[in-house]
Amino acid sequence: MQLPELIRDIGRRAREASRSLSTLTTETKNAILRAMADELLARESAILDANAADVTGASAHGLAPAALDRLRLTPERLRAIAAGVRHVAELPDPVNEVLAEWTRPNGIRISKVRKPIGVIGIIYESRPNVTSDAAVLCIKTGNAVILRGGSESLRSNLAIAEALQAGGARAGLPADAVQLIPVADREAVKLMARMDDCIDVLVPRGGKSLIEAVVSTARMPVIKHYDGVCHIYVDAAADLEMAARILVNAKCQRPGVCNSAECVLVHRDIAAAFFQTVAPQLEAHGVELRADEASFVQLSALDYRPLARATEEDYRTEYLALILSVRIVSGVAEAIDHIERHGSHHSDAIVTSDEGAAERFLNEVDSATVYWNASTRFTDGGEFGFGAEIGISTDKLHARGPMALPELTTYRYLIRGEGQIRE
Amino acid sequence: MQLPELIRDIGRRAREASRSLSTLTTETKNAILRAMADELLARESAILDANAADVTGASAHGLAPAALDRLRLTPERLRAIAAGVRHVAELPDPVNEVLAEWTRPNGIRISKVRKPIGVIGIIYESRPNVTSDAAVLCIKTGNAVILRGGSESLRSNLAIAEALQAGGARAGLPADAVQLIPVADREAVKLMARMDDCIDVLVPRGGKSLIEAVVSTARMPVIKHYDGVCHIYVDAAADLEMAARILVNAKCQRPGVCNSAECVLVHRDIAAAFFQTVAPQLEAHGVELRADEASFVQLSALDYRPLARATEEDYRTEYLALILSVRIVSGVAEAIDHIERHGSHHSDAIVTSDEGAAERFLNEVDSATVYWNASTRFTDGGEFGFGAEIGISTDKLHARGPMALPELTTYRYLIRGEGQIRE
Repeated sequence: MQLPELIRDIGRRAREASRSLSTLTTETKNAILRAMADELLARESAILDANAADVTGASAHGLAPAALDRLRLTPERLRAIAAGVRHVAELPDPVNEVLAEWTRPNGIRISKVRKPIGVIGIIYESRPNVTSDAAVLCIKTGNAVILRGGSESLRSNLAIAEALQAGGARAGLPADAVQLIPVADREAVKLMARMDDCIDVLVPRGGKSLIEAVVSTARMPVIKHYDGVCHIYVDAAADLEMAARILVNAKCQRPGVCNSAECVLVHRDIAAAFFQTVAPQLEAHGVELRADEASFVQLSALDYRPLARATEEDYRTEYLALILSVRIVSGVAEAIDHIERHGSHHSDAIVTSDEGAAERFLNEVDSATVYWNASTRFTDGGEFGFGAEIGISTDKLHARGPMALPELTTYRYLIRGEGQIRE
Repeated sequence: MQLPELIRDIGRRAREASRSLSTLTTETKNAILRAMADELLARESAILDANAADVTGASAHGLAPAALDRLRLTPERLRAIAAGVRHVAELPDPVNEVLAEWTRPNGIRISKVRKPIGVIGIIYESRPNVTSDAAVLCIKTGNAVILRGGSESLRSNLAIAEALQAGGARAGLPADAVQLIPVADREAVKLMARMDDCIDVLVPRGGKSLIEAVVSTARMPVIKHYDGVCHIYVDAAADLEMAARILVNAKCQRPGVCNSAECVLVHRDIAAAFFQTVAPQLEAHGVELRADEASFVQLSALDYRPLARATEEDYRTEYLALILSVRIVSGVAEAIDHIERHGSHHSDAIVTSDEGAAERFLNEVDSATVYWNASTRFTDGGEFGFGAEIGISTDKLHARGPMALPELTTYRYLIRGEGQIRE
């Protein structure tokens, strides 16, 4: 089959599968997930062999060591993947939840009920665990899924998808409910993105260029996970020890993730005192500071190293590394203005004991998560108590911030009458 | 200014305006709406003069009489527009509604709060009342709006937009909160659709080709209002008088709208009896029937006119006219299958006294609104009790079915702590 026909065929099969999937009971879906977990473990050697072939191939193609590590599976990692599947089976099923219910004066009864979306396309890069993680969240919510992983992990992804299909089938999973695009051709992504009659939503999980490519082609909604250019604003009324603890946590605890801080804004009245408190801690973590003129002078006086002058571009950059932009501001208004102009509307925090300043910040910073006196690192499905996470949406529509099972559903209005007609 | 710069400038101004708009109190927003209504009435002669020029121009260009009628404003219609603005001022404000609130074991308090989306782009065709209707719903929900109406109504739209701006400004509306694209060039729509940094969502209101054009260019989410190919399934256990009443209402009460029925599916066991009941009523309304072979034979025997054989294409067609497709089916399973394959997932109904068949239909028909024993004509914001309606979304994400004020909002997570950091 040619690629366009192959992708259309996969789309059609997924749409068909989604019809039976959407009517499965919670018990059946959970039994399917448990059977999938069993099969992943039963096929350990086949999955690890496929993965070893991927690692060898990727290594020969010069994949960077960090990416090779993300690609590599071990018996331990496979057990963790299977445990993740079992964990999703334990979570509450959002499907059929009644969101609202009312009766109109003419007697018709309206219920707004959560239902599966239909067919979800997941486009991702090198980590093979996404094959399983994403698929089981879709199945739990009654959606068919089309998976399109990175070419370097194709053998691993195929082995994992086959295990999920075989295990699931034993427990009643409809055929074609979980499908993986079996070819590495990048054209497949474009073909998926035009197929809005078969795919209801695309979720690209990966770098900005992948997301951009999907957004510029897609005809269906795309749930985007763009950059986190996150800020900590240290107000004049901040407890400086608390501010330092929050900043160091937000910058250093795991600098490579989207909810880590990339910029600190400091009120001019407490800047000198704050830098004295925090600079030794940041320096101990090896954080490079990129400072505006006013803070550069103060940090130079403290002999901070490494220290550079910030460019306008720095303030828009998600470093994902031990680098931090610094700027001194005149107050909460200027801090909000900076964040609105330079930030990415992901997660931003104010540290202050002034409730008025805090409430203004919470009200005016238009980010998915806005914090008062806490680290931005809490923007996470697990930390929110959601039990599972597909990702952290930077969109404003449908899903914003940490996305969990309810965000993989839509709703229908179900109306029950006794023959009412419209006059 | 060249068109691309003009559109970018409008986008930038809207983004800026959205910041102040999002913080307005409900009282200020309602005062703005009331001042807008006053100004629409105060400018009656200017608006009607502009409209008369549009009507003359459109008439000279050969616009069809029905479209000319939609374009035309009268003192009465303008009073209705102003009354609509006042009505929106009376509605509850969804902004700042707390959707959920909880405390995590580490003590951080999480609130999920409704907030304005930001900037909404509305692209519409000839009716000038949309300029006012859409703008006031956006302002009520704290969103800036960019309006792009049809070229034939440009003078009317400009006069209405100026009245809204002038009236609003007196009551505290930020500059550029309501902007109208002041040129007729169709390129403007494409430029808007690429500007995802300035416009958060596009809502095209118009025919399929307009929506298609927006969908294929847009980088931001588009809330689509596609066809309504709506079905009435008359089950074996239907009360045939009720079924006839519902079908005649759904087909004939207002055939030109998206929630009217386009196809009736009839259980074979009661087909003859049902046709005997309903045929005289449909014939009295002048409804043309397009029938499958089995129903064609029966309807011919009743000497039904006008009657034709249905093609496969008929079953996918939104007639928006007094034409109805007919098909005999073997039961609820075949009815559901037909609807899933041919329908547009808008509004579909079953008429039956068999609760099992009804619940199966409600559970398996994947449409925005699914009915048991009621007319599909109730799919409407007003009929649902929403007080206002932007349109009826055929999307599954963010907004499905009748869209009202809450669907013009997003949410933020606001987190309050006492210095918590992530371990």
